[in-house]
Amino acid sequence: MTKNKPRIPSGFIEYLPAEQIEFNRLLDIVRSTYESYGFLPLDTPVMELSDVLLAKGGGETEQQVYRFERGHNDLSLRFDLTVPLARYVATHENELTFPFYSYHIGKVYRAERPQRGRFREFYQCDIDIIGSNSHHVDSIPPTVINEIFEKFAFGEFTIRLNNRMILNGFFEELGLHEVSSGVLRLIDKMEKISTDELNNELEKLNLTKEQIEQVLNFTGISGNNNQIIERLNAQDIKSETFKKGVIKLQMLISALRDMGVPESRFQIDLKIARGLDYYTGTVYETILNDYPELGSVCSGGRYDNLAGTYTDTELPGVGISIGLTRLFYQLKEAGVINPNRQALADTVIMPLSEEQMPQALTAASKLRSLGIATMLYTENNDLKRKLRYADRIGFRYAVLIGKDETEKNSISIKDMGSGKTSLLGIDDAVKLILSNGSI
Amino acid sequence: MTKNKPRIPSGFIEYLPAEQIEFNRLLDIVRSTYESYGFLPLDTPVMELSDVLLAKGGGETEQQVYRFERGHNDLSLRFDLTVPLARYVATHENELTFPFYSYHIGKVYRAERPQRGRFREFYQCDIDIIGSNSHHVDSIPPTVINEIFEKFAFGEFTIRLNNRMILNGFFEELGLHEVSSGVLRLIDKMEKISTDELNNELEKLNLTKEQIEQVLNFTGISGNNNQIIERLNAQDIKSETFKKGVIKLQMLISALRDMGVPESRFQIDLKIARGLDYYTGTVYETILNDYPELGSVCSGGRYDNLAGTYTDTELPGVGISIGLTRLFYQLKEAGVINPNRQALADTVIMPLSEEQMPQALTAASKLRSLGIATMLYTENNDLKRKLRYADRIGFRYAVLIGKDETEKNSISIKDMGSGKTSLLGIDDAVKLILSNGSI
Repeated sequence: MTKNKPRIPSGFIEYLPAEQIEFNRLLDIVRSTYESYGFLPLDTPVMELSDVLLAKGGGETEQQVYRFERGHNDLSLRFDLTVPLARYVATHENELTFPFYSYHIGKVYRAERPQRGRFREFYQCDIDIIGSNSHHVDSIPPTVINEIFEKFAFGEFTIRLNNRMILNGFFEELGLHEVSSGVLRLIDKMEKISTDELNNELEKLNLTKEQIEQVLNFTGISGNNNQIIERLNAQDIKSETFKKGVIKLQMLISALRDMGVPESRFQIDLKIARGLDYYTGTVYETILNDYPELGSVCSGGRYDNLAGTYTDTELPGVGISIGLTRLFYQLKEAGVINPNRQALADTVIMPLSEEQMPQALTAASKLRSLGIATMLYTENNDLKRKLRYADRIGFRYAVLIGKDETEKNSISIKDMGSGKTSLLGIDDAVKLILSNGSI
Repeated sequence: MTKNKPRIPSGFIEYLPAEQIEFNRLLDIVRSTYESYGFLPLDTPVMELSDVLLAKGGGETEQQVYRFERGHNDLSLRFDLTVPLARYVATHENELTFPFYSYHIGKVYRAERPQRGRFREFYQCDIDIIGSNSHHVDSIPPTVINEIFEKFAFGEFTIRLNNRMILNGFFEELGLHEVSSGVLRLIDKMEKISTDELNNELEKLNLTKEQIEQVLNFTGISGNNNQIIERLNAQDIKSETFKKGVIKLQMLISALRDMGVPESRFQIDLKIARGLDYYTGTVYETILNDYPELGSVCSGGRYDNLAGTYTDTELPGVGISIGLTRLFYQLKEAGVINPNRQALADTVIMPLSEEQMPQALTAASKLRSLGIATMLYTENNDLKRKLRYADRIGFRYAVLIGKDETEKNSISIKDMGSGKTSLLGIDDAVKLILSNGSI
């Protein structure tokens, strides 16, 4: 019989168990941290009606949507979690309590050109605070991100902060209101393109040499957070938008200090603009200090109107998103993530022959009832193969039950780290395992 | 502007936060129990290449597959987790260690005719032990199921057990080998169709009146587990398949006792056949005693060859699957599941005015650092509205910080259950919250 080559579509990824365990551990950190801040879970369908999902029109992203017909339905797979969130909030507007703290962790789909580190199916992990008129909540996403990346332990990181109102107010002052979204997009790309390219592109938007210089000077304002705020306040700019933006940025900085986020972890950077049109206030990006080449690993910002496509109710809010699949891939490539722990259970129980099966089954249930994750290995083969299995899967302890052990009403427990074995009563074995002790 | 009606495709489901919290709680029970038995996590792509996914051909299910073209790819959404598991194991055959204890929790897709309680996107929660030649592992899925349904607390339940070898051996004896899979499928439907219908269908398979009576008598054998084993052993049946099947069933029963599964929770039932062709030994179904009309809420069995479509390596195994989306829907309809707890966080912190914002932010961080999930409510509105919010979301405690509290370096904590408020120092408030105490 000709076998069908078992492969997955190009651009997709799946992990071996050890990697999956590590990936899930990171997902669990994200989820439990989100929950500890009071965010409520959301799980929207992966598939939406195309006329609903694509109502706003999506330009570049729309080209990448997996769209198909089925029966009378024109369907699309979600390409992010923001549009489904907007749709969800509009659908359930009257059943939700605002401000709605929501978190949404799920797979999204983009038919991107396959390239290293880019996937067509990937996890996004979003939080949003929706329907809040209070700008104080802008401090929550960076505080959450600080906690998550501290737990991730990928080294030091910097959350870069800005406020669109500052940039927009500055553009107003320069008389660039008309082209402000184009300039914003270029500022967003600033660190990825050359100065010449940037100049050319700004010239295409009809900026004068002087205006270009002013933009470069302004976005280049540097210093620590207090110094940048000082320098912003010292600018001779009349725009009210600008002034409000500076006050909001200042309050954000001060809130982050109140929340206990270390000063070294957040930095005002006037080059942070975010490409998307719908941000209107605070914007965030996150850089791993040791891996700046990865770009922002976590971004977001404040918006005025989440669900304007679907409802007349204005829903301002603020949100942030972690693209975990890409981050995981890149840090695995960089050697920062090393999935090596393969077993989730600590202990494997191995009866040495068929006769000891009842004792083995009973012991396994006893261990589990005491909170010890325990696998049962009942293959009928020699001790050497049994121990090779325990080693490969990565158990901490192998519990061996043979004739001797049964007669003595005890078990042999092997410390897979040291290789040493000890004959113990079951209660003593439990104590050893619970204390994660060595033999 | 004409707003786009924000709706999801027919046959799809999404929950409000309180429901989602309860659904996730059940998913967490499933996952943590699976992990405590040593099962390793799997997360395959939702999309597969159609020629791979549908290589085996799927009859009825194939009609329901969401299939579409994109670029040069003919793609299909997975309709269950078993085919992707087989494909995964074949893909990574040389990188996995067998027996491979795997668990797989994810969404699957079927374009079924929409009807009450049937969904086009739903969660399956599977475990499989693959590449094991030991029949002892057949006792693990029902032991896991026993633990999960005990934790679910949907009332008492019965895991019904049988072995295909017993039925096949019995058919051999009756000379029905040729039509055995047809007869199996009818036995599987026995409880859903009338006796007349059953008779008609069995006649269509050319069974004589006498054979039909024998089938009905045999599958009707009743009694407690020991009595049924006795009655099976008393049958005058020479078939070796039958005899082996009885021995395996007997060993399964005895293993379940060793594992501490209460006798009232498992019951041999010779009418359990499972429709699918690929089961070859032990088969399981699970019935909620108070809701037998739901049918089996969790089923599975032993197979000889998981991935024959993809590899020449024979991979025998045993597995079981919980269809959580449907179960959740049905039990919510029946009033067994009542999502009422809406908040995941215990505590909400509410500054009474802008001036107390720093104290509120600091207090929130302090509570969180001590392991108390804490939301921050910073909307600028009156106390009544603040408390209405705390009540609606379902927090246990509301922490109020006003001018008085700030001056006294303390907080007011309101027990949302009793409605009583107490002025406490932050450390005493933490103690109260951690002890889940009343005021």
